[in-house]
Amino acid sequence: MSKDAVYDVIIVGAAAAGLTAALYAARQGMKTLVVSKDLGGQALLTNHIQNYPGYDTVDGFSLVSKFAEQAKGFGAEIHLEEAKELKDEDGIFTVKTPTREFTSHTLILAFGKTPRDLGVTGEDEYKGKGLSFCATCDGPLYRGRTVAVVGTAEYAADAALLLSDLAGKVYLIFNRSKMAVDEATLADLQSRSNITQIPNSKVTAVQGGLTVETIKVRDESSKTETVYPVDGVFVEQGYIAKTDLAQGLVALNERREIISDKEGRTSHPGIFAAGDVTDIPFKQIVVSAGQGCVAALSAYNYLQQKRGKALIRGDWKRRK
Amino acid sequence: MSKDAVYDVIIVGAAAAGLTAALYAARQGMKTLVVSKDLGGQALLTNHIQNYPGYDTVDGFSLVSKFAEQAKGFGAEIHLEEAKELKDEDGIFTVKTPTREFTSHTLILAFGKTPRDLGVTGEDEYKGKGLSFCATCDGPLYRGRTVAVVGTAEYAADAALLLSDLAGKVYLIFNRSKMAVDEATLADLQSRSNITQIPNSKVTAVQGGLTVETIKVRDESSKTETVYPVDGVFVEQGYIAKTDLAQGLVALNERREIISDKEGRTSHPGIFAAGDVTDIPFKQIVVSAGQGCVAALSAYNYLQQKRGKALIRGDWKRRK
Repeated sequence: MSKDAVYDVIIVGAAAAGLTAALYAARQGMKTLVVSKDLGGQALLTNHIQNYPGYDTVDGFSLVSKFAEQAKGFGAEIHLEEAKELKDEDGIFTVKTPTREFTSHTLILAFGKTPRDLGVTGEDEYKGKGLSFCATCDGPLYRGRTVAVVGTAEYAADAALLLSDLAGKVYLIFNRSKMAVDEATLADLQSRSNITQIPNSKVTAVQGGLTVETIKVRDESSKTETVYPVDGVFVEQGYIAKTDLAQGLVALNERREIISDKEGRTSHPGIFAAGDVTDIPFKQIVVSAGQGCVAALSAYNYLQQKRGKALIRGDWKRRK
Repeated sequence: MSKDAVYDVIIVGAAAAGLTAALYAARQGMKTLVVSKDLGGQALLTNHIQNYPGYDTVDGFSLVSKFAEQAKGFGAEIHLEEAKELKDEDGIFTVKTPTREFTSHTLILAFGKTPRDLGVTGEDEYKGKGLSFCATCDGPLYRGRTVAVVGTAEYAADAALLLSDLAGKVYLIFNRSKMAVDEATLADLQSRSNITQIPNSKVTAVQGGLTVETIKVRDESSKTETVYPVDGVFVEQGYIAKTDLAQGLVALNERREIISDKEGRTSHPGIFAAGDVTDIPFKQIVVSAGQGCVAALSAYNYLQQKRGKALIRGDWKRRK
């Protein structure tokens, strides 16, 4: 473990919210560190983005790379390792990763949401080896092959339709009598001859050798289990806030999202939050980016106030 | 006066907040109208923007044009005339312009802030005829000529420095003993041989023929008035929320900004707000854009609830 100088702000997470926070914090002259497992997170990789203001269409990876470049241009540092522990020791925050320990005067929590997993044997082992959380990203690898999609709602329906155009055969496994999607989507699913719907069912194991070879599926009505040979499994069950890291430090709502006010403040002084991990109901990239900016400027104001210096407020100028 | 079909939403204002709101409202299938005096507003015209996430640098006009194009692409209509009156008649809102009258089920107020004016004789008459609120926009017209800059803070200092590089002579008129800027900026102002500082003074009249020719300046210490020959006057006194239009409909704070919560709701059901006109302390383009998106989706949810339909909430999917 090595110790660095105390940062003005550490931002946990490096997607739209975290990187925008980094850009604005660094631009205000704050000593800024971003700690994240990866750049962009899951959500940004899943869609062609057609609604980020300023771009007709852009892929998530390009957009996030651009954000990261801008943040670094203003002097933000990025450490690509997962934050494993957060602590407040007398107003100095500690962020621990597997190999490092960083300290800061403020924290911005912006680690987004993560895909809801299956929670079954073999899932961790086969991640990236046939098990994917992103049909748009990994679908093209399964051209002509057999895949399973797991999930009951729109995410899963869209993934199944997308894969139906690429794969030879698609099993759609869901634990309801019918998919929870609109009639048009239901009809579309039914019209695809290479999609087999498997209702009232749950995946209980993912198995194989070096890569996925079979899944075990339990029919909850008949209480029977069937093994399906598949080359790939797409887990498309939506996203959840994995906020265990922040548990006890900041107040969470019933969805385990971080409760934050319109200036990005959490229940804990000095800790701010932005993006999909917060209790804002609208999970859009431009909203996350706006919240990231707000959290950074609030963290700046918090430190300025502590140091008896001038705050950003009102018609404060857009500085170049 | 002609009457149109009732819109789902009318957005008053067409800068970052208003146009982003239009984009998201139209994308949700809402019948959407933007009513605004102009595209972009004052603020977006004043700076080269170096901090909008996704762009290294972009001029305000290009960015706003792009936003407008995207909003229109999703079906939003834009009516370029100033909103003069807003009314709520039994839950149907009316927006009146000099020549038209529009009605809607929801309103989004996003008309930003406007420059603080001088409030003197000749100001209205010479707007665009030698009197400007934007040194960056209009400065190049005064190459080698004589101009006055009015204001005590950073806006005015920056305008004076910019104009000092272009104009032959710059009078900097401010009603304090010294400019309210940092030491470095003060030194920079003093180092410019073509800037004449006129402290403790107020402009009392703007005069001329077809264009500005002189200004009358009153020295508040000596109580004397002097006439200065100038070709241009730059009013650089910051921005205020001109919310008279919304007075009585929505609650305002002490700065006359519209009080809104983190979901963009005002004190009036069915009326939402976004951008610089709200009480958010951080006036940044990306914050305005984020707030615009939030206000649009909140307006959508408000209508959906009224109509007994499904709301956007939580891990609602980013639709294509």
